[in-house]
Amino acid sequence: MTVYFIGAGIGGIDYLTVKAHKIISQAEVIIYDALVDKEILEIASSECIKICVGKRGGEISTSQTSINHLLVQYAQEYNAVIRLKCGDPAIFGRINPELAVLRKINIDVELIPGISSALAVPFLANIMLTEKDNSRCLTIITGHDPNILNWSILSQVDTLVILMGGKNLSVITQKLQKYGRSSDFPIAIIKNGGNPKQIQWKGTLKNIVEKTVNISLSPCVIVIGKVVN
Amino acid sequence: MTVYFIGAGIGGIDYLTVKAHKIISQAEVIIYDALVDKEILEIASSECIKICVGKRGGEISTSQTSINHLLVQYAQEYNAVIRLKCGDPAIFGRINPELAVLRKINIDVELIPGISSALAVPFLANIMLTEKDNSRCLTIITGHDPNILNWSILSQVDTLVILMGGKNLSVITQKLQKYGRSSDFPIAIIKNGGNPKQIQWKGTLKNIVEKTVNISLSPCVIVIGKVVN
Repeated sequence: MTVYFIGAGIGGIDYLTVKAHKIISQAEVIIYDALVDKEILEIASSECIKICVGKRGGEISTSQTSINHLLVQYAQEYNAVIRLKCGDPAIFGRINPELAVLRKINIDVELIPGISSALAVPFLANIMLTEKDNSRCLTIITGHDPNILNWSILSQVDTLVILMGGKNLSVITQKLQKYGRSSDFPIAIIKNGGNPKQIQWKGTLKNIVEKTVNISLSPCVIVIGKVVN
Repeated sequence: MTVYFIGAGIGGIDYLTVKAHKIISQAEVIIYDALVDKEILEIASSECIKICVGKRGGEISTSQTSINHLLVQYAQEYNAVIRLKCGDPAIFGRINPELAVLRKINIDVELIPGISSALAVPFLANIMLTEKDNSRCLTIITGHDPNILNWSILSQVDTLVILMGGKNLSVITQKLQKYGRSSDFPIAIIKNGGNPKQIQWKGTLKNIVEKTVNISLSPCVIVIGKVVN
């Protein structure tokens, strides 16, 4: 009885790790997030039980308590249960409550990292997040609740990568300018990074909202820093 | 004629992506860094030309100019040349000069992300880098030249991940305390992360240097933040 917490990476099978591929192909149960690529689920056998517990902003979703219950229930009944998360579970994967309930009842847990969209999406869009002089310091945040973040610090880091920030773009760009970033500071938004539908916008803190008005930006990665140019 | 910039991840074949595995198995030339796992090089055929251009602190190494020359030379002669970097080339992979010389002579380049030690090593050591309340902001730096960094900002981010910081541990812990971090702030050092020789030390900014005195810490990932506890 082991529950494998696996990062599915940024899209199809190509960006999965060899280890994740092997474990998924032997899985009995997969409990997965909404954005996980269907191609990856098809690696598993047809007998594998596949349960979507996706949480998407605004939509009806499975509660954390229900996910915890599902994990405990299947972990007690099956030997190879996978909790499949998008990207890398280390980065805003919110797996602590799930780990806690499993460890409480002595279920073995194995952690398997994945390719994080925070790093890979800008890289595949030809934006180098670190650079000798322009970017010695890289900071990653989520943008889903900008009001709880410390913008006086965030406005000073060389390069800022924001996950889940599409719908709060306007607040984010305002906060950064309020705390001292110049209005012509560069910003890029990459939507559907790493897959054929990838699209990106570049601009400044002042004009990016106007450039993307009326466009649904999620799922996207936002990069703010001199490395964008 | 394509040069593939590939992230080798954090160790053996398990942590390679499926895409990287496929391209390495078909490579004609691999130009690789010192820390790349030998197991990964063995995926390539016996006819594949394998050239180590490792740069390790203190040792004799191949200059950046020589690496650029090698890349250009092999890219003009072979169809499938790989530049294999440890971890993820997006994170302090210093690939910009190499990309520049290749693009100047119109050689096709493909970027393939890898598992970054900055994220995966703490994760595999059971340190969750992001947490709902304790860590909303994650910053990654290298510690190989602490004097050029802005410690007044770095001392305020929730969680700080430092690559290549082993030999400057003393300076790093002093800088953070000088700029306001309390002496009992938690720190972890993970050496050889993700492989069987993994070892870690936990302590505070005040006592970690003493706890690791006379121990060679490289290669290591340092995590500083409440998430360590």
